Amino acid sequence: MNLRPLIAGLFFAVCSLPSGAEDGYDLWLRYRAIDTTAHPALVYRLGPVVAGNVSTSTLVVAGEELRRGLQGLLGTEVPLAREVKNPGAIVYGTPESSPYIAELRLPLANLGREGYLIRSVKIAGQPAIAIAANTDVGVLYGSFHLLRLLQTRHRIDVLDVSSRPSTQIRVLNHWDNLDGHVERGYAGQSIWDWHKLPGWVGPRYTDYARACASIGINGAVLTNVNANATSLTPAYIAKTRALSLALRPYGIRVYLTARFSAPIELGGLKTADPLDPAVRAWWKKKVDEIYAEIPDFGGFLVKANSEGQPGPQDYKRTHADGANMLAEALAPHRGIVMWRAFVYSNETPTDRAKQAYDEFVPLDGKFADNVLVQVKNGPIDFQPREPFHPLFGAMPKTPLMMEFQITKEYLGFATHLAYLAPLFEEALDSDTRVKGKGSTVAKIVDGELHGYKYTGMAGVSNIGSDRNWTGSHFDQANWYAFGRLAWDPELSAREIAEEWTRMTFTNDPSFVKPVVEMMMDSREAVVDYMTPLGLAHLMDTGHHYGPGPWVNSLNRADWNPTYYHRADEKGIGFDRGPTGSNATAQYAPDVAKLFADQKKVPEQFLLWFHHLPWTHKMASGRTLWDEIAFRYTRGVERATKLRDTWYELKYRPDMQGYIDAERYAQIVAFLQIQVDEAQWWRDACIAYFQSVNKLPLPAGIAPPRQPLEYYKSLKFPYAPGRG
Amino acid sequence: MNLRPLIAGLFFAVCSLPSGAEDGYDLWLRYRAIDTTAHPALVYRLGPVVAGNVSTSTLVVAGEELRRGLQGLLGTEVPLAREVKNPGAIVYGTPESSPYIAELRLPLANLGREGYLIRSVKIAGQPAIAIAANTDVGVLYGSFHLLRLLQTRHRIDVLDVSSRPSTQIRVLNHWDNLDGHVERGYAGQSIWDWHKLPGWVGPRYTDYARACASIGINGAVLTNVNANATSLTPAYIAKTRALSLALRPYGIRVYLTARFSAPIELGGLKTADPLDPAVRAWWKKKVDEIYAEIPDFGGFLVKANSEGQPGPQDYKRTHADGANMLAEALAPHRGIVMWRAFVYSNETPTDRAKQAYDEFVPLDGKFADNVLVQVKNGPIDFQPREPFHPLFGAMPKTPLMMEFQITKEYLGFATHLAYLAPLFEEALDSDTRVKGKGSTVAKIVDGELHGYKYTGMAGVSNIGSDRNWTGSHFDQANWYAFGRLAWDPELSAREIAEEWTRMTFTNDPSFVKPVVEMMMDSREAVVDYMTPLGLAHLMDTGHHYGPGPWVNSLNRADWNPTYYHRADEKGIGFDRGPTGSNATAQYAPDVAKLFADQKKVPEQFLLWFHHLPWTHKMASGRTLWDEIAFRYTRGVERATKLRDTWYELKYRPDMQGYIDAERYAQIVAFLQIQVDEAQWWRDACIAYFQSVNKLPLPAGIAPPRQPLEYYKSLKFPYAPGRG
Repeated sequence: MNLRPLIAGLFFAVCSLPSGAEDGYDLWLRYRAIDTTAHPALVYRLGPVVAGNVSTSTLVVAGEELRRGLQGLLGTEVPLAREVKNPGAIVYGTPESSPYIAELRLPLANLGREGYLIRSVKIAGQPAIAIAANTDVGVLYGSFHLLRLLQTRHRIDVLDVSSRPSTQIRVLNHWDNLDGHVERGYAGQSIWDWHKLPGWVGPRYTDYARACASIGINGAVLTNVNANATSLTPAYIAKTRALSLALRPYGIRVYLTARFSAPIELGGLKTADPLDPAVRAWWKKKVDEIYAEIPDFGGFLVKANSEGQPGPQDYKRTHADGANMLAEALAPHRGIVMWRAFVYSNETPTDRAKQAYDEFVPLDGKFADNVLVQVKNGPIDFQPREPFHPLFGAMPKTPLMMEFQITKEYLGFATHLAYLAPLFEEALDSDTRVKGKGSTVAKIVDGELHGYKYTGMAGVSNIGSDRNWTGSHFDQANWYAFGRLAWDPELSAREIAEEWTRMTFTNDPSFVKPVVEMMMDSREAVVDYMTPLGLAHLMDTGHHYGPGPWVNSLNRADWNPTYYHRADEKGIGFDRGPTGSNATAQYAPDVAKLFADQKKVPEQFLLWFHHLPWTHKMASGRTLWDEIAFRYTRGVERATKLRDTWYELKYRPDMQGYIDAERYAQIVAFLQIQVDEAQWWRDACIAYFQSVNKLPLPAGIAPPRQPLEYYKSLKFPYAPGRG
Repeated sequence: MNLRPLIAGLFFAVCSLPSGAEDGYDLWLRYRAIDTTAHPALVYRLGPVVAGNVSTSTLVVAGEELRRGLQGLLGTEVPLAREVKNPGAIVYGTPESSPYIAELRLPLANLGREGYLIRSVKIAGQPAIAIAANTDVGVLYGSFHLLRLLQTRHRIDVLDVSSRPSTQIRVLNHWDNLDGHVERGYAGQSIWDWHKLPGWVGPRYTDYARACASIGINGAVLTNVNANATSLTPAYIAKTRALSLALRPYGIRVYLTARFSAPIELGGLKTADPLDPAVRAWWKKKVDEIYAEIPDFGGFLVKANSEGQPGPQDYKRTHADGANMLAEALAPHRGIVMWRAFVYSNETPTDRAKQAYDEFVPLDGKFADNVLVQVKNGPIDFQPREPFHPLFGAMPKTPLMMEFQITKEYLGFATHLAYLAPLFEEALDSDTRVKGKGSTVAKIVDGELHGYKYTGMAGVSNIGSDRNWTGSHFDQANWYAFGRLAWDPELSAREIAEEWTRMTFTNDPSFVKPVVEMMMDSREAVVDYMTPLGLAHLMDTGHHYGPGPWVNSLNRADWNPTYYHRADEKGIGFDRGPTGSNATAQYAPDVAKLFADQKKVPEQFLLWFHHLPWTHKMASGRTLWDEIAFRYTRGVERATKLRDTWYELKYRPDMQGYIDAERYAQIVAFLQIQVDEAQWWRDACIAYFQSVNKLPLPAGIAPPRQPLEYYKSLKFPYAPGRG
């Protein structure tokens, strides 16, 4: 089915948009009116919104959000009031700010600094809803929660909700450069307009903060991990301060990346040795300077001695030495250091998958109190599927933060539908076995297993200047899912998908059901057409757009796809068991045994851990080669099904259908691009592997559409998001 | 008056915006409802919109625009109909498409291919309005004109409008790179999403086309003049084709820039010599390939042998040889070549201002029929003020196109208010005297003076991915003014400003009057605080952001500001009279005499043409040095007045005021940035010139706020728009 003519037709149908069209800017905070005849229980006598003594900007924005949300959802004016006079009031605040909340004596003790309660209560004899917390930001989170209940059509007549976050530091990592380019960004430029800051602080920063707060994100690292010392100059500190003013009411702290060599580049020192007193003094002074402008500055994220970045090893010091120096400067201000474990080196002869573990495990217990080590979900680099990172569970004395990649560097950029919550969930649910069964990664990250003082989860942002924020409408779900999971790793990918779909599109079950199925199948589709059976890192060089399994000419061995798949005439896969790199030994014994056993290892990790002959017999009864060809082909079929499911969702030109014409049309076009690119991935990979093994394709599997040389000849010098 | 606290306050007031807020996306096509009680004559019984036999996409979009506009303006449903039954119908079409129009036998003969009539008529005994033209695109232009009359509150009860464009080719030059970066762009990235084309053709392309068509722009050069051969590869031709499909209904042809060395880079030839048969064959084949995909492709814009670009001189051929080769390939398809006269070379010892003339005048008469030479308004490079380019009038046998720069590379980027229509008007009204008095540049450009076969005007676009298109709201007026002047160079800058203000903001005269005054004064303010009295090219290097009059270290002499101002202990200015470079001799004798005479030359060009002692007595009675200091200071005062005037425009928080909160706040912030940067320019330039002449400042003129070294120390490595 070729949808191109259809798309062209659609284009003219939606050709130009009235102001206020559904262009995705509103994200999941659309607050469109509830059909009150269908949901009378929901909207029965709601409002006014009753504030207490609102003296902080956070309570102001909480009240405004409640009012805005209710006005949209109920379709009526909802006043802000100071007193409860009628049934249906929504009373919000802390015991300190609201006398009503104080009087209710709600059980707030276990909610911590950010948790909240939402309860059906009686106030002055009238039924009311109370949103209560120990802090203003807790009240704000509770306000968004109540709105979400309405948006997703939960009953609100008998409410007893209590929630607190599982992790303390829930941050987005913006890989944004000071010139506006976003490394691995597929949604336009950076949303930070550094050039016009601090003179112009636009309203988009506030809408960013609203969206983040609505899902519990409480921090933003503004700058790229491939850091630039300029961000620490006074002119840029003033810019960062202006941003912090916009984000602070929403409970969002700003963080910066610290370039390790900044004392040389900015301070004119001859060294950046972390044990050098002048270097330490420089950082202390710099940090004091930042806090003088931004009193709630969060701290630093650091990528050191990785992919060319400077770091403590340049001076024969350890990562702990480097992190602790910064931690010392930050400690008096309660700032923290997030030190990335993403280190590997071409000079190290070891399997790249092993290097972070080798480097960091010996340092366990040597980091200062206010240092967290930030670990990617898998041991390589955000591939469509990786086993969990062996560091999880291996550093009981060092708080380990999770680092997920929300931007789809390796999963089809902006156009492919790849809902990532199943990937996040798979990582969090992985059982490390370090303290027996049930020692999940989630329990390490949330501090339960090792009693970490700090806990956190970082997501590499997919946000940019595109009108719909994330480049595609479905990619908004990945931002959403990251925030929801950082707050509560117990949530299932499916329930998050359903919640998001209801808020973003419609509550109509005949839309929600198939769309949630699309989302839930999408990541497996990508795995199938890009890297099935534990293959990884097959993408083209530099931009990472499209397939490049043949690439073997890069200076660094560990940047070549051939390093990862190791395909030759006889077989394919990376032997990481005891006969190979022995990376399996970095896992707890039970897990190590499982992964090292080619008969027991989950098939999805087969070629990650094992090099096997093409003729290896699979559970399906197929040979390995046939299975690979089958999976690639199935990936294209799955992508095709995504498109066709969407296409069949009764689009209605009168805009009274499930979804507006504009978003519908873009999603159709993107799903068609996904089908085309899935085919390209499949054909290129099959053509290449077949050129290596010279084996025939199994019956029923179509040959690649073009010869291998064609796929090799494709060049994309202007693909977005370059590093 | 320091407005920073106010701005901070405003920020929280507008903090986040409901969907459909006035964010500038609608440009001057807002179509907000007319207050019918105030304007009963306007809206008395309008509609339906009566189409004839609508079989082309251009007539479809004309009807849709009429309907959309009328519905917005009248606040009622306006149907499309096939018959006139009631009074007030709007009948549109060509005699071929509409029987009603045919019956009216309107005098269309003199309207040409793009002109139109709008008339009050009677149809079937009912009063109606006819929009008639010889072609569909003429009908579209007439439709926009009628809407403009309503938008600006002209009476429409007795209409007799006739209009046709003065120039044939009215094009935007997008200096957009294939990676999305816009050279000299200050409004985000390119609006062309090359990476997702042709799979995704978004609605923004259509809104771009609507805006262009509404002001008569009929062409878009999609790619940077610093050209990339990749844009001529099959993959990119397919992308350009997709764009052409979106733009074609609006009468907009697409053009590309041709990299002269493309036959080598893409074709594998050893030369790009324009007289080499293989090179000619390569271009012919390439052009045929483009037309096979894009039958109305417009042609090529070429920058050759300038600032490092390849060109025919690399092979000892002339610009005519190069242009004619491309023209030959394009001629069978009715395509054209726009060959830029912006050439200068460091190796040429002549005054840079003279080089284009020296190079091109000998070639007059040697260009093929379908070549236009595109000439910048002034002889250097889009400075805040330049005298007209001496080529105008000097090439009677070669069609000369005007090239204006709409993007404000040298006039404050996106934030400064600098309404450019007075600059455009000044250039067009300049009297070259080549055929006696009244031989204006306008009459050369529109072909009247020399009877050119082709005529055209190009504007270097200021359009980008920013939500408001141009980076600032006021910069929309420069796009608007360019289009309006390209259609009709007789329009005054003031009437265009008034028209635009009414459409973009409000018709309330107590808003329109002061805002038009702001716009009309703004460019002179910039001249005062950047480059008064004929000074030029004083900006900092590379990014061109902020002052750098001290820069004298660049490899190319003619890139150094010191080359242009020639300030020393004794005096300042560039002697371009007979005692100097004798650039004045390139003008017609009367003009040459005027410019060469330091007593008669208009003061605004004084230092452009003359090197004078600091003690030179000015008309004001001041010395030259005192006058320079006075003008710089006045520039800051003017900028301050712009801000204060805006601030006093009764902003109303209930949004019932003149202007919505969002646009109001951004304009306040930008005007404050302009004040700050005007002060910076003034202080830095005064500090520098004073360091050269060691003279005291006149009484009442404040010293610079910082020492010269401070200004020299400022670095802006991430300023936007780099080349």
